Amino acid sequence: MKPDHKKLLYEGKAKRIYSTEFDDRVLVEFKDDTTAFNAKKRQQIEDKGALNCQISAHIFEILEKKGVLTHYLGVVSKNLFIADFVKVIPLEIVVRNIASGSLCRETPIAPGTNLFPPLLDLYYKDDNLSDPLLTDARLEILGLVSKERRLEIDTIAMNVNNVLKPFFADLNLLLVDFKLELGINNAGELVVADEISPDTCRLWDQLKSDPNERILDKDRFRKDLGGLAEAYREILKRVQSVCSKPRNYR
Amino acid sequence: MKPDHKKLLYEGKAKRIYSTEFDDRVLVEFKDDTTAFNAKKRQQIEDKGALNCQISAHIFEILEKKGVLTHYLGVVSKNLFIADFVKVIPLEIVVRNIASGSLCRETPIAPGTNLFPPLLDLYYKDDNLSDPLLTDARLEILGLVSKERRLEIDTIAMNVNNVLKPFFADLNLLLVDFKLELGINNAGELVVADEISPDTCRLWDQLKSDPNERILDKDRFRKDLGGLAEAYREILKRVQSVCSKPRNYR
Repeated sequence: MKPDHKKLLYEGKAKRIYSTEFDDRVLVEFKDDTTAFNAKKRQQIEDKGALNCQISAHIFEILEKKGVLTHYLGVVSKNLFIADFVKVIPLEIVVRNIASGSLCRETPIAPGTNLFPPLLDLYYKDDNLSDPLLTDARLEILGLVSKERRLEIDTIAMNVNNVLKPFFADLNLLLVDFKLELGINNAGELVVADEISPDTCRLWDQLKSDPNERILDKDRFRKDLGGLAEAYREILKRVQSVCSKPRNYR
Repeated sequence: MKPDHKKLLYEGKAKRIYSTEFDDRVLVEFKDDTTAFNAKKRQQIEDKGALNCQISAHIFEILEKKGVLTHYLGVVSKNLFIADFVKVIPLEIVVRNIASGSLCRETPIAPGTNLFPPLLDLYYKDDNLSDPLLTDARLEILGLVSKERRLEIDTIAMNVNNVLKPFFADLNLLLVDFKLELGINNAGELVVADEISPDTCRLWDQLKSDPNERILDKDRFRKDLGGLAEAYREILKRVQSVCSKPRNYR
């Protein structure tokens, strides 16, 4: 990639997106910035960006093998990957297998409750509004997606869960919940975008019974438990034990 | 009603519910207490209870005439009515014709946006959780109502809107939105319970164009506009201009 084509297109809380020499491809840079509670809490954690980039790359390749479309093309360096340019739909799509986090703060559903079928929660992605929960009727009024796209979102979210839940279970990791962002690529396809990492998934170590020790995701930061990079490294280690190295983008 | 049967069963922010000599009937007392923002703001406003009791009684009789089941039986005094004992479903059922209030704080939907079909929002009634918005999927997990009851709730809410919107329009009042609570009576029927008053409806005077002057509901209190009792009195006056006196409970 020619460096003179690298222009910052967008900077989020955990990533920067740059242009490349190809209009339909972008460079995704993972930062060490760690934020929670709508960035009210923030910290730099060494290696976090690189760990999330590698984990995400692995996950995207696993999804791809199972026929789930993603924006991912290949890694460039430890904290950079190349992806298709997509128009991101401003929704946070959350799939929950076990009740945790905001669901338990907002409803009387007890933490740890098994949710089957998994619960799909859609949030409107807007920091100024603190990413509010959307009902289907509110989503329809906002006009963000057609009814057909709405059904497609459900299908993709459930497909991702059906791939990742057993994948992680084989690594003794319980996929509690995860957040997806979807985008539309130049071919008009709805694909999984953003990242899939311990920043965006809750993952519990099934080899540990202590409710704090088992946490291997960003809840370590939210709950001030420490050891975030170590937890992410443990996840990467387990993923690497069953996956070949992510492909390089040439 | 024999006074020795009057025992306080429940005290809410704006009403007290007492037992009567009949197991299946309760006495509903309207208080002058005015609260907003989950009771963070509160004030006593003289006559408010009596005005809401009278307005509610009229509205319940109008609904009854149109075939909508309610808990209301008849008035006892200016701030007391008798109602069927019902098991209240812990949901706040909000029907919105025009975007206002929390909808506009929680989404980018602009205040004043016409909502057609009307938007139905269900909130879980729990002050400790600040009455959170529920999606259908969350409602199902909570197990508060069966799928059949869920459809019945929709139908009742839309029926109430279809009766009250034109009723108020004829009085030059725009029914912006309203909140219902539903309960199950001893016959197992789902009926409109609680109250329907300017505490629970947004009503705008269509004879006024000024956005503050036209407000004839509890937003006068929320927005510190003053003149709440006068506004409620104006609504009662217009309702009385087309309705006969509410029936007395004998």
